[in-house]
Amino acid sequence: MKIIDEARAPNPRRVRIFLAEKGISIPFEPLNLIKLEHKSEAVRRLNPFAQVPILVFDDGSTLSESVAICRYFEEIQPEPALFGHGARQRAEVEMWSRRIELGLFQAVAHCFRHTHPAMAVMEQPQIAAWGEVNRGRVGEVLALIDEQLGGRAHVAGPDFSIADITLLVAVDFMKPAKIIRPTGLSNLERWYTAVSARPSAKA
Amino acid sequence: MKIIDEARAPNPRRVRIFLAEKGISIPFEPLNLIKLEHKSEAVRRLNPFAQVPILVFDDGSTLSESVAICRYFEEIQPEPALFGHGARQRAEVEMWSRRIELGLFQAVAHCFRHTHPAMAVMEQPQIAAWGEVNRGRVGEVLALIDEQLGGRAHVAGPDFSIADITLLVAVDFMKPAKIIRPTGLSNLERWYTAVSARPSAKA
Repeated sequence: MKIIDEARAPNPRRVRIFLAEKGISIPFEPLNLIKLEHKSEAVRRLNPFAQVPILVFDDGSTLSESVAICRYFEEIQPEPALFGHGARQRAEVEMWSRRIELGLFQAVAHCFRHTHPAMAVMEQPQIAAWGEVNRGRVGEVLALIDEQLGGRAHVAGPDFSIADITLLVAVDFMKPAKIIRPTGLSNLERWYTAVSARPSAKA
Repeated sequence: MKIIDEARAPNPRRVRIFLAEKGISIPFEPLNLIKLEHKSEAVRRLNPFAQVPILVFDDGSTLSESVAICRYFEEIQPEPALFGHGARQRAEVEMWSRRIELGLFQAVAHCFRHTHPAMAVMEQPQIAAWGEVNRGRVGEVLALIDEQLGGRAHVAGPDFSIADITLLVAVDFMKPAKIIRPTGLSNLERWYTAVSARPSAKA
């Protein structure tokens, strides 16, 4: 088993943090997105959608999409549970994962891909106006997340979950996207300091 | 228990189809998105992200996000399984759900919201160029899905799953977005005819 990933891209990092939290060690085989290595025929044979990460099983079959790879490992090694325990908590983790991925992570990604000069090779056409709209939306979503974090240690409840992983990766992704973190979000800052200090954050 | 939804919007329809497939009946309370009723203070108290559907429990607590609501009902009533059985199949359902939601559904949604005159009130600013880029991407993703459907009855495997629900809703969403379905995708057409004929498709 191995995982094809990319060192600097946010989605592969989600899987690396998830596996570190689970204490699972899998060999990683890096490629370079800026050189468009993920668009090669070899990678398309593994994932026709030409995206990383890709989990390659020993029989040569594959599994793509960061959250699908995480869910696979949650199923085969349930503890520590990173998708929640029980119906209500699992649904809460799903809700916050989606709010963060669709509302925040994607806004940061659209801003980065449509405004950063290095992305011109990957995002064609770059539409700067769309990037700027997304830059403007990040603050609103972070304020709602800050409110949520007022009453709890982690974003989907008392326990660390995959929703925290997506939030950490999204917040760190704001740096290359050149989005300034709003000041005054003290719950978010407390959470960010704590989650960034976990050993998995370096994965 | 009740669900606040909207008759014409695609995300609430995902939940209605899911519940119909499960044979679960919950009262629906509709509101009108075009009149921006989801932006009201009353709705924001139930979901600060101001989106529907919203599941309201009898104790007044709430759960938002279509897939989170579906997952809640999958957990409390596992059969028929719509998120898959077992680690590998659950991961496959997740993978295809994400490919369809992030690659297809969102492309259709961006096209609709950025090019349809009726959406000017909801999507500000409308960026027509971004809508058109997304219109152009729909065909590529549908071709990849058609290829996948060549070897199986449903998109994530032999059994009907939530990935089929998202695909059905996305394909039907192409009509108001005025995106023409490419001809020659015979596997997709066979699948569409079969899935549209299920009683749940009318939910």
